[in-house]
Amino acid sequence: MSEYILPLERLIEQFARLPGVGKKTAVRLAFSIVDGDMEKAKAFSDAILSAKRDITFCPVCGNISEGGLCAVCRDETRRRDLLCVVEDVRALTSIERVKEYRGLYHVLGGVISPMEGVGPEQLRIDALLKRVGEEGVEEVILATNPTVEGETTAMYLAKLLSPLGIRTSRLAYGLPAGSEVEYTDEVTLFRALQGRRDIEG
Amino acid sequence: MSEYILPLERLIEQFARLPGVGKKTAVRLAFSIVDGDMEKAKAFSDAILSAKRDITFCPVCGNISEGGLCAVCRDETRRRDLLCVVEDVRALTSIERVKEYRGLYHVLGGVISPMEGVGPEQLRIDALLKRVGEEGVEEVILATNPTVEGETTAMYLAKLLSPLGIRTSRLAYGLPAGSEVEYTDEVTLFRALQGRRDIEG
Repeated sequence: MSEYILPLERLIEQFARLPGVGKKTAVRLAFSIVDGDMEKAKAFSDAILSAKRDITFCPVCGNISEGGLCAVCRDETRRRDLLCVVEDVRALTSIERVKEYRGLYHVLGGVISPMEGVGPEQLRIDALLKRVGEEGVEEVILATNPTVEGETTAMYLAKLLSPLGIRTSRLAYGLPAGSEVEYTDEVTLFRALQGRRDIEG
Repeated sequence: MSEYILPLERLIEQFARLPGVGKKTAVRLAFSIVDGDMEKAKAFSDAILSAKRDITFCPVCGNISEGGLCAVCRDETRRRDLLCVVEDVRALTSIERVKEYRGLYHVLGGVISPMEGVGPEQLRIDALLKRVGEEGVEEVILATNPTVEGETTAMYLAKLLSPLGIRTSRLAYGLPAGSEVEYTDEVTLFRALQGRRDIEG
């Protein structure tokens, strides 16, 4: 039974398919389109189609690109012997934002998660091993998220890479900047203690 | 400075224009389009255009319609002497959902709000007075929201309608079903006390 007229119902349904958007939010968003002008609706509709049509994935690292190699892989000033493995393009973008890392990336496209039926074969792991074998990589930074799945995936990759004589590392754990010890969860505090560093006095 | 490639940046910008969608959510939503398949993007894009193209507003009451009179105004079993004035189509739909009201509606298209620069002339008030004068309306239910602006608008309309000999009413105030007295705010409790009803024992 549809509560709204068909074109509105269809738009609500489309919004409700977006991640984290419930029925009520979908109704609100759909009305904002109906209440807005045609020009806005056209721009939105075009942006969706164009994003899907014009964005491709880098055949080497899996980053987004506008056709062919991505901007990072094309950048000849970058170190080619250092790879940073991330779960997705969002993580890659966050690391780029820091402007500290000067190596290349490898986007896995997810993490190993038996709960969600994702095994190693669904991730870009074969491509990673192939790159490591062919491109003279010396160190791989495993920058998957500090979650159970992220840890499992990092351990899995470390086991595959170590026999190849590749140095593997993991991002440091600890207190986030600006946080307070009082409100930090136990797992993070435990790791911050374990990873404590000497101060040169 | 754009952090993402242009087609993605444009889509993020479009999502960020939606009400209640911040930058981070916009990024997440845009990536869901990029990560989804072309068919989904096409369906979404079409739904936006179609909603804007195929949805019109009822020339009589301002409800949404697929061309011409809306379903409520076309329904000949409805009472024509009773009008319910609502702020927007969402409020109309909520009242319809109850399946209790059998009169017609009048959508104002907002409320009087000096803070947001909305005066009576921006609302469909002239059209309301015209309908009341021409269509033999006997009662007008002022169902604007119980907010400062909604109240102000209802009072304003009541003053315009009373001299015309029209009965005006307002939705009852009180405790929402399933709520608890303990957690009810003071204004609501005050109104619930004022509006108390005798129980026939």
